[in-house]
Amino acid sequence: MEKLTLEELKGMPLDKAEKLCGEIREYLTENVVITGGHLASNLGITEISVALLRIFSPPEDNIIYDTGHQSYVHKLLTGRKESFSTLRTFGGLSGFTKRSESIYDPFGAGHCSTSISAAIGMARADALAGINGKSIAVIGDGAFSGGLVYEALNNIRKNDKIIIVLNDNEMSISKNVGLMAGYLNKIRATDKYYNIKRKSEEIISSVPIVGGPSARAISKVKNGIKTLVLKNNLFEQLGIYYLGPADGNDLKTTEALLREAKRLNRPVLVHLHTKKGKGFLPAENDPSSYHSVKADPGKKNGTTEQKEEQKLLKPVTFTENFGKIVTAAASENEKITAVTAAMCDGVGLNLFEKKFPHRFFDVGIAEEHGMTFTAGMAAGGALPVFALYSTFFQRAYDQVFHDLALQKLKAVIALDRSGLVGEDGPTHHGLFDVAISLPIPDVSIYSPATLSDQVYVFKEALICKKEEKESDVCIIRYPKGTQDSDTAEIFDISKDISVYSPYPYDEIEAVIVTYGRITAEALKAVKMCRVKCAVVKVLKLKPFDTVKFYEILEGFSKLKAVVFLEEGIKNGGFSQLVLSKASEDGKLFRIKDGQPFPIKTKIIAIDDTFVPQGKVPELICHCGLDGKSVSEATEKLFEL
Amino acid sequence: MEKLTLEELKGMPLDKAEKLCGEIREYLTENVVITGGHLASNLGITEISVALLRIFSPPEDNIIYDTGHQSYVHKLLTGRKESFSTLRTFGGLSGFTKRSESIYDPFGAGHCSTSISAAIGMARADALAGINGKSIAVIGDGAFSGGLVYEALNNIRKNDKIIIVLNDNEMSISKNVGLMAGYLNKIRATDKYYNIKRKSEEIISSVPIVGGPSARAISKVKNGIKTLVLKNNLFEQLGIYYLGPADGNDLKTTEALLREAKRLNRPVLVHLHTKKGKGFLPAENDPSSYHSVKADPGKKNGTTEQKEEQKLLKPVTFTENFGKIVTAAASENEKITAVTAAMCDGVGLNLFEKKFPHRFFDVGIAEEHGMTFTAGMAAGGALPVFALYSTFFQRAYDQVFHDLALQKLKAVIALDRSGLVGEDGPTHHGLFDVAISLPIPDVSIYSPATLSDQVYVFKEALICKKEEKESDVCIIRYPKGTQDSDTAEIFDISKDISVYSPYPYDEIEAVIVTYGRITAEALKAVKMCRVKCAVVKVLKLKPFDTVKFYEILEGFSKLKAVVFLEEGIKNGGFSQLVLSKASEDGKLFRIKDGQPFPIKTKIIAIDDTFVPQGKVPELICHCGLDGKSVSEATEKLFEL
Repeated sequence: MEKLTLEELKGMPLDKAEKLCGEIREYLTENVVITGGHLASNLGITEISVALLRIFSPPEDNIIYDTGHQSYVHKLLTGRKESFSTLRTFGGLSGFTKRSESIYDPFGAGHCSTSISAAIGMARADALAGINGKSIAVIGDGAFSGGLVYEALNNIRKNDKIIIVLNDNEMSISKNVGLMAGYLNKIRATDKYYNIKRKSEEIISSVPIVGGPSARAISKVKNGIKTLVLKNNLFEQLGIYYLGPADGNDLKTTEALLREAKRLNRPVLVHLHTKKGKGFLPAENDPSSYHSVKADPGKKNGTTEQKEEQKLLKPVTFTENFGKIVTAAASENEKITAVTAAMCDGVGLNLFEKKFPHRFFDVGIAEEHGMTFTAGMAAGGALPVFALYSTFFQRAYDQVFHDLALQKLKAVIALDRSGLVGEDGPTHHGLFDVAISLPIPDVSIYSPATLSDQVYVFKEALICKKEEKESDVCIIRYPKGTQDSDTAEIFDISKDISVYSPYPYDEIEAVIVTYGRITAEALKAVKMCRVKCAVVKVLKLKPFDTVKFYEILEGFSKLKAVVFLEEGIKNGGFSQLVLSKASEDGKLFRIKDGQPFPIKTKIIAIDDTFVPQGKVPELICHCGLDGKSVSEATEKLFEL
Repeated sequence: MEKLTLEELKGMPLDKAEKLCGEIREYLTENVVITGGHLASNLGITEISVALLRIFSPPEDNIIYDTGHQSYVHKLLTGRKESFSTLRTFGGLSGFTKRSESIYDPFGAGHCSTSISAAIGMARADALAGINGKSIAVIGDGAFSGGLVYEALNNIRKNDKIIIVLNDNEMSISKNVGLMAGYLNKIRATDKYYNIKRKSEEIISSVPIVGGPSARAISKVKNGIKTLVLKNNLFEQLGIYYLGPADGNDLKTTEALLREAKRLNRPVLVHLHTKKGKGFLPAENDPSSYHSVKADPGKKNGTTEQKEEQKLLKPVTFTENFGKIVTAAASENEKITAVTAAMCDGVGLNLFEKKFPHRFFDVGIAEEHGMTFTAGMAAGGALPVFALYSTFFQRAYDQVFHDLALQKLKAVIALDRSGLVGEDGPTHHGLFDVAISLPIPDVSIYSPATLSDQVYVFKEALICKKEEKESDVCIIRYPKGTQDSDTAEIFDISKDISVYSPYPYDEIEAVIVTYGRITAEALKAVKMCRVKCAVVKVLKLKPFDTVKFYEILEGFSKLKAVVFLEEGIKNGGFSQLVLSKASEDGKLFRIKDGQPFPIKTKIIAIDDTFVPQGKVPELICHCGLDGKSVSEATEKLFEL
């Protein structure tokens, strides 16, 4: 595909624009399999993205892509083609929309369902400032199940210059669930709705009323019907003008509807159905697998050189391990149920769903509801496990607090993708779950570093504790990917707190206190550090066993420094909690020759900043959490 | 009203039950003006509460009151009449539903819009356990604007034994806003909808098709109409059977509809309209003022002995002060807009609304949307101030993070009701805002202790900083009520950090570091403490000026202890952050005679527990945050 200005795109005749769509598809299939990223949704939305830029005039008009993962075509056409090969790499183009990247991204995203709220905000700000553009929210039917959408729809005013483009591909990430999805299916099926609506007024008016006993009644009801049928559509009932449904992969139709929407002086919803993976057969046939494609420079044209044997050798991930654990536990205890918010595959619940379909609940992309639903289920006597990504846990914060913890209900929250997630970047890193969970009274928090840790803590949560009152809400966080083999070897027995000391205890001068996956870096640091260090690995972050911890510290008679290493935000995090507690408890100094001397302390964590995208090892170094940086920081405490 | 068993209530003839409703109303008007609490909504819901207990059989059926503030009648009838006088007092009955209070409160609340999610969870858990009851969510039209409701509606399955009782009084807390409210108004107006629906099928079928050119077209469309009109209702379109609208203050009708809903084997929504404040004229005429009534033992039968002069002498609250500040700032800067989530009165924006109606935005009870809307507005170039209660800020956590802070947008978040709020109890205390805000990168956090502090920080946020890049999202938290006069007198000049030392600096042995309203207790502690103490009052919590702080500490040459006093949760809070940082920076020991000696530290805050209801001063003592406790804890560090 050639380089184009927005002017040229606008001026292009329809047939050339249609051809362009084909070229864009070709470009995407060739490139996204190399860079990795969201393929199927971008193939589906090509005509819509092209049409939006032909009909509207950003930046005066605000085109806001919900979630932002389907903005690749928009990026290609708004001056970001040259850098497209850097997609999702460190320092490169974001895989989502991003304000700092382009004036054509007026509102960034990553999490879903925010676009309509943002569009209303922008539209009203524009109105106040006398700017005349439209604010357009482009949103998929999947994101349409988020409560934010409804709160936003509810808040639309008659004079808001809002257009909602509903890109309906009958999918969220995997198959869409819920009543709204059912409703959209229904109106999608009535292809003739658009025509019926246009013609029904005259036709109803022309229905003659014949004589007979029910004539008066008919006359009365007919008027009722007239009003009802014209306003039948759910969106119209809420006061939003509805256009559609129409084929969003047909450029001509799409442009016609958008043009009409632009002309109307009122809030409009344009309902377009598209085919996820359009134009690329493997993705059309299996859009769920092609929702997000892993970067693979060896891939060409969507074929893969990865061999079957490699698949067999692939190490078990924390996600897969979770799936096995919870399914096994459910076989033992029939009260166990599993909940997901449209992420059955992502969180590894496929096996559970297959084996216990009646105890498996997909609530759609709706984390808030998922959490309160989980609480309701617990109140009803089940033992629910709600598995979600750490970053989306932020969505359900008040629900964990208000519906679960405050009511002391028993539930397990499994947080997948905790810590750095890599290419998805700042909206998706799971760096805040510990800091926001620690303040909640009465919850337990575990952070397994190895697969056997993970088995151990779920056993604690689901089996040992199931009849006890002590810890009711149990949060278990684990990272994307698999365990570090060194960590697994060294910490082969899972305990709430464990110690690894490569030197005799009385030679240790510093300890590195850490938890979760980043333990691997602490172990590396110990190897290269000129100070003799031990590693204290914490599995149970809360309630934290300070007695045991102090005992461990006291075991090191020559201890001079405690370093904390945390793959998470520093402010409000675990290290600050433990360190401040140790200070309160008078554990930060030692007596030597009858004189106290202070123990030096240092926290290595994410220091008040958002972490960019990149490969996980790259980001670990970028944040200074790598073994070498930890070793150097420790040496610095000893003025080495 | 007499004491009744649930059996007796069920067995009672209709006319006696109607009489009972009158007695309950009388009882409520007499008592709630004494105890304080939600009056108008409970007067409105009386018949519904009575009918529910007559038609259904809890605890087998789960009756879940949304928000829970309108559960007083339910409480009176489920064995809690004897203790009703303890309503909202320390150790007494909760002003909301509460699981630990009664088996007839199967799911507690305080925050709104959770009931349908909870009901679905309970219904499915019951189904798995083979329990045959229905789960009934009783929800007001106000709570219906929350996104959780939509996520839940979307998640209902055909076989869920769910009944939603929509108690539609055309109000949330004040006048309801939004498209859903408009929609409810519309169907409420079509009183005949219920009849139309029942009769329309036969009538439409009986419309004869006469000959002529449009006959075939009519025939075709008629079938379309038939389907459409029968499924016209918004809820029915989503697959939920709709019953109503009907008069929810008519016991006979209400019981008839509930009976029908019980009989049907599918999810049902029963739409009842009621009159908020029903039966008590002052509340009927001004339901917004009678939404929540302040306890006043001097009040009798709704009349008040409070005199007009007293009103004039009433000190200015932080809420009122906020209203003045933001209105004045808006006069200076036309970019300033104000946002509220159905709490215009509560957060003190009445004046602003009056003066700048076009720059005032009430988004309904929808904090998530409110926050993303605020972000959209900021992206559009306005300078929005979103004012909400601290406890509801938890609802919008991901939105502050993802839509505001991550995008470095300029906005001010004003958190009213920060700290202990009193009688509303654990669901409403604002004890977590600091702990959950500190981890968010790049935000500024201020906690004014006095009214002039509040003026100072809003000036910082809205005027001084408006063109700077430094701090984009500015969170300003302040308590319910007014300032402490001692604090205002002592700290008459507002600074990011201030010191009050009643003794010469070189005699001070301990400092109490604190912020916000609780500074008053630190001052009391200093007065009574046998250790010579100074108070360090912090106004800007983040970014925290550690350089200045260390300078202050170093100014006290004989300093031996640092005590932190925080009206907030300890874990993840400000004190832990500062204390751990001071440890890292080597500021927790001093050199004396060439030898280091450690500075003792202590954090006094809410220690990993939910705080019950009660009067604020009572709760301050209960939590050990009062001057005497602080003084004693300080003395204990000195082994006094």
